[in-house]
Amino acid sequence: MSKFTFKILAKDNKTGARAGKIKTGRGEIETPAFVPVGTQATVKSLDNQELERIGVQIFLVNTYHIYLRPGLSVIQKFGDLHRFMGWNKPLMTDSAGFQIFSLGEANRQRRLRFSVVEEEAPLVRISEEGVTFRSHLDGSEHIFTPEKSIEAQITLGADMMVAFDECTYYPSTQSYAKAAMQRTHRWARRCLVESEKLGKSQALYGVIQGGVYQNLREESAKFISSLCFAGIAIGGVAVGESKKEMVDVLDWVFPFLPEGKPRHLLGVGEIEDIFVLVGRGVDTFDCVMPTRLARMGFALRKNKAQRQEHKVEKEKYLIDLNKSRYALDEGSIEEGCQCLTCQNYSRGYLHHLFRAKELLAYRLVSYHNLYFMERLMKQIRNSLKEGRFSELRKEWL
Amino acid sequence: MSKFTFKILAKDNKTGARAGKIKTGRGEIETPAFVPVGTQATVKSLDNQELERIGVQIFLVNTYHIYLRPGLSVIQKFGDLHRFMGWNKPLMTDSAGFQIFSLGEANRQRRLRFSVVEEEAPLVRISEEGVTFRSHLDGSEHIFTPEKSIEAQITLGADMMVAFDECTYYPSTQSYAKAAMQRTHRWARRCLVESEKLGKSQALYGVIQGGVYQNLREESAKFISSLCFAGIAIGGVAVGESKKEMVDVLDWVFPFLPEGKPRHLLGVGEIEDIFVLVGRGVDTFDCVMPTRLARMGFALRKNKAQRQEHKVEKEKYLIDLNKSRYALDEGSIEEGCQCLTCQNYSRGYLHHLFRAKELLAYRLVSYHNLYFMERLMKQIRNSLKEGRFSELRKEWL
Repeated sequence: MSKFTFKILAKDNKTGARAGKIKTGRGEIETPAFVPVGTQATVKSLDNQELERIGVQIFLVNTYHIYLRPGLSVIQKFGDLHRFMGWNKPLMTDSAGFQIFSLGEANRQRRLRFSVVEEEAPLVRISEEGVTFRSHLDGSEHIFTPEKSIEAQITLGADMMVAFDECTYYPSTQSYAKAAMQRTHRWARRCLVESEKLGKSQALYGVIQGGVYQNLREESAKFISSLCFAGIAIGGVAVGESKKEMVDVLDWVFPFLPEGKPRHLLGVGEIEDIFVLVGRGVDTFDCVMPTRLARMGFALRKNKAQRQEHKVEKEKYLIDLNKSRYALDEGSIEEGCQCLTCQNYSRGYLHHLFRAKELLAYRLVSYHNLYFMERLMKQIRNSLKEGRFSELRKEWL
Repeated sequence: MSKFTFKILAKDNKTGARAGKIKTGRGEIETPAFVPVGTQATVKSLDNQELERIGVQIFLVNTYHIYLRPGLSVIQKFGDLHRFMGWNKPLMTDSAGFQIFSLGEANRQRRLRFSVVEEEAPLVRISEEGVTFRSHLDGSEHIFTPEKSIEAQITLGADMMVAFDECTYYPSTQSYAKAAMQRTHRWARRCLVESEKLGKSQALYGVIQGGVYQNLREESAKFISSLCFAGIAIGGVAVGESKKEMVDVLDWVFPFLPEGKPRHLLGVGEIEDIFVLVGRGVDTFDCVMPTRLARMGFALRKNKAQRQEHKVEKEKYLIDLNKSRYALDEGSIEEGCQCLTCQNYSRGYLHHLFRAKELLAYRLVSYHNLYFMERLMKQIRNSLKEGRFSELRKEWL
């Protein structure tokens, strides 16, 4: 892991926020940074050249999806994910844990709802060894262990990878959350051992679990911080708990984290959350939100009170391009935005593309939404370096 | 129509092929030129910047689709199609005739197949006045007349537009083909009158019909050539007749066309056809083929006999990226191709994107296929200017 370093460049004196720089063998990531998600080895609808123009520094590929399709042997043939996709900048993979547990949770909900008989084979079975699950693509059975997750991630070759954990869904009892956390801790050690054995220069992040229980989160923060991970990830948030509970988890965990290691928050990134989590000291976070919203016709922008949008749009940071009020609108998504979409296309045209279900619609708004996120993160980084993070936060919230 | 001119720059001495230049108020089109189709005011999946990088000189928007959605009033609010789409180069619209008749034909086939009772209202009714049809979107009834088609196309504001015609499907009796041709001729006059009345600088193309009957095609060629259209379009081809019949139609028609007017072939453009139609003297032609094939996973390339593709791909100018033989293929679609896709992405990656139904797949192959077409057309233009069209044709066929 010699190539991976993290340096703090500036700290806010009122909050836990900090600006820093992660160095990897494939380039630097200025933090705080948003990490877009490219689930199936593509940030949906955008190509690498566009991602670079937008200013994307890193994105996350889901190990679960790539493991099932096209399969690790295909990636191995190409060398690694970077070469497979033609992306030369930093990359992150996750452990596959979250996807497997989502599948299990979706299955559990379905069984509860439809009173499925117990004889039916469950989609996910957890043991100390690892997790057995069935593919959502073809129903084939697979087993993932901490060792296998690390082995898979090393095959994928991303610059940052994540330890295999058991994500507890919300709500869960304290005893279940505790058992899952303890297993996550035992698996964390196994991941580290496997990573040391196989690892080249890929930085491994340990994962803190513990549900919404303060004592468990504190215990997990201390334990994971005590191991020699390159970075610390916080898992099991944004799985159904309230915003208040999510912030509580951050407040409980952060006092116990080593200052010098980068911190990643898994799966969080609504605009409303960003200032909160950066204020707690999160360095990177990934989320499908900006790109998923884009494909539904929701474009990110700051709807000012005096603007018409505030009256007609319920959301503070979105406009819904599907709405017929935009059919004749010659303005861009966001006045002053320098992105390809705002510089060239009107809301009226985008509205038409969404109505007509044209492929270009998804792409142009995905471009804008990621551009919006990158610009916001750059503003945050600059505000930290210039000592005016709190002012920027006030401007936005 | 003062801004529209056509100049012949070079002629082949063995065939009817010619290189020329169409000038419009929005720029020049070097001919022979392929005209991609942007049915719903977008060349599916590609943005204007990409079209320019590919070298697209002009594309065709379908009046029928825009008339129904978003509607002419929306385009009027924006000014014209150019401003609506943000495209500043030449544009072409069609008359809506072909779409309306396709709809009627599809309906006729359905009625024949399912023995639909005659009481059911047909989707299309033709009278001397014009055509009544029902929208494929919401079933609402509309009427298109020659005057209304021209009025619509003038509202859209494209640089080149097409007279409203009655397209005869294949096979049709000589008496039906004759009646449709005669109506097309009467409508041609009405279109010219309406265009003179409303027209600004939009060039109007008359349409030759007559099915696969030599006497009718010759009569139509003479009649349409005698009117003061800016250009001549050949319609009613590629509607089900054989390749031989299509070539016959071109052979019958071309001797009667005025040398100095540009000729457009409606809806044709398979690679195999291009040398034939250019050899007859076609200057421009539009076709959905390169982009539609792309979205199905078919990439254009010249499969040489000594290459593996020739053995595994039945088609001479296509590879099917869906096939599992490409899963591990690190090569680009076409060696030596300078397009964005071939310079950055492998067949294996594209295969994965198609398997995973990722949006990026449709776009990257659409890009390549249009690039392929533009490069081929440029080669053809250069060969004409350098007196080696026949050699180039031999190389390709």
